[in-house]
Amino acid sequence: MHNLNYLIGMTAIAAFAMAGVLAAARKDMDIISLTFLGVITAVGGGTLRDLLLSTQVFWVLDFNYVWIAIAASIFAFYLERHLRDESVWALILYLDAFGIALFGVQSIDKALALHFSAPVAVVMATITGIGGGLVRDVLAQRPNLLLSREIYATTIIVGSICYIGLMGLGGKTALTTLAGVAVTFIFRSLAIHRHWRMPRWLTLRSNLNG
Amino acid sequence: MHNLNYLIGMTAIAAFAMAGVLAAARKDMDIISLTFLGVITAVGGGTLRDLLLSTQVFWVLDFNYVWIAIAASIFAFYLERHLRDESVWALILYLDAFGIALFGVQSIDKALALHFSAPVAVVMATITGIGGGLVRDVLAQRPNLLLSREIYATTIIVGSICYIGLMGLGGKTALTTLAGVAVTFIFRSLAIHRHWRMPRWLTLRSNLNG
Amino acid sequence: MHNLNYLIGMTAIAAFAMAGVLAAARKDMDIISLTFLGVITAVGGGTLRDLLLSTQVFWVLDFNYVWIAIAASIFAFYLERHLRDESVWALILYLDAFGIALFGVQSIDKALALHFSAPVAVVMATITGIGGGLVRDVLAQRPNLLLSREIYATTIIVGSICYIGLMGLGGKTALTTLAGVAVTFIFRSLAIHRHWRMPRWLTLRSNLNG
Repeated sequence: MHNLNYLIGMTAIAAFAMAGVLAAARKDMDIISLTFLGVITAVGGGTLRDLLLSTQVFWVLDFNYVWIAIAASIFAFYLERHLRDESVWALILYLDAFGIALFGVQSIDKALALHFSAPVAVVMATITGIGGGLVRDVLAQRPNLLLSREIYATTIIVGSICYIGLMGLGGKTALTTLAGVAVTFIFRSLAIHRHWRMPRWLTLRSNLNG
Repeated sequence: MHNLNYLIGMTAIAAFAMAGVLAAARKDMDIISLTFLGVITAVGGGTLRDLLLSTQVFWVLDFNYVWIAIAASIFAFYLERHLRDESVWALILYLDAFGIALFGVQSIDKALALHFSAPVAVVMATITGIGGGLVRDVLAQRPNLLLSREIYATTIIVGSICYIGLMGLGGKTALTTLAGVAVTFIFRSLAIHRHWRMPRWLTLRSNLNG
Repeated sequence: MHNLNYLIGMTAIAAFAMAGVLAAARKDMDIISLTFLGVITAVGGGTLRDLLLSTQVFWVLDFNYVWIAIAASIFAFYLERHLRDESVWALILYLDAFGIALFGVQSIDKALALHFSAPVAVVMATITGIGGGLVRDVLAQRPNLLLSREIYATTIIVGSICYIGLMGLGGKTALTTLAGVAVTFIFRSLAIHRHWRMPRWLTLRSNLNG
């Protein structure tokens, strides 16, 4: 069971890294920069979470996370050069959705195990999911998801609240974990597939700053 | 007295968050992104300070800071949509000035209590005041205050040095605290009101990088 | 010997700060902003390293690093206004190369002394070398080195691996330290002098994102 969890975690890290390389890839970028951006996308959010929780950064303790992220980034680099199949990248988008769902639940478990409150745990799940991508977008000088109306952070927040609620009702079982991952994953997958955007009434209609 | 301090701190957090939402607001941004940017503006500087001082991040221990920042951000979102009164936002600018003054003094107290040196304390006061806004501007992809000639960080540095100097002369009393807050607040308020800019001789006249 | 190391470290900090001010300098920037950017360039990478290693941030313990960075930044500000000699700035570029070489070796020593693994140490050397410049470029809203094909991080990675390899073979002596610094410095100096760029086959040829 523990080994399965570890394997699933590594798969999610790889998906994060590949999605990161895809998003950041631009003409004239070299493999070192792209790998750097892929690794930051993959481990950046969890790094922020661990710093905020005053706990040892996870990949400093187990460097396998970084090795997997490096390998996945290099793989994505060659994939991009040789294979331009949209369906491959679509798959990665759903793997990324799986990644935020899984890391969300893991981050909540970690925060609660360190005796932090439920709201702190929800924030940590969200930061773990979006932090890496935000840092990547800042470094790659591209628009980040805060500037779009895509439904991304919302799915993590909703999934996290459901997961914590279920644990409050029935305790922590394999089923609550599964349900927690499922809510975020399904919500995010629907948002991808149906191109959901935030409704207008929750969006600014005018440009305040001219 | 302690309760009053707490209340004042929460007011300043709310002002920071509202000023943050105002500054970042742009067409098509949704309420989740704006709230995220508001909260980062409000607690980002103090978070950086606590990380640099190797101490537990303040809002992880007391989540009320984040609740207030979330509430103030949502309030600012609706305010922006329904009320375009310049005087409201001018008030927020002065509340922000009060915020940097108050958090400056609090950060100095915190750094000195942890036995760090006076120069470290001044740096922490400055980072607490400007850090959140810098991170917000980077994420919202807008020009930050380092790129303007506005007098902002300078007021915190001057106020912090005065405060530490007064404590050196007369010890830490309610009066020195008040004076410390007042110097930064008055200096910054004058800078806002009179549109003070850095003098030319302290400014680059040409564009080095072409 | 210890004093010599300290002096060399301070020289490298000064070089980092001056290179930082030069890179960020733009019309209408004031001396406070430029000094801030210079100091961030100089100490930012080491700060990130220390946070990731869960150890006390170096300049919080010894503020002399910041004093030197402030002095060097102000000096660079006046230098830029009064002296436009290309050769001065070329010298600073090579001092920066010396800085990344020296701080790379120091970061590896620090990480290994804290019982982290060799790969973690190499990552820390790289982050120490490039972190400050990345943060500066983000704040100054200019293209960072991840977006160029310049050979920079690669020289630190290669130098770090050589240094750790040599220590594995012959233990830590003054000679291995010297060799470790030399590899990065010479590699980076050649990259500057000969305008080396990443080869085409390690670079994206097309613009993925249109």
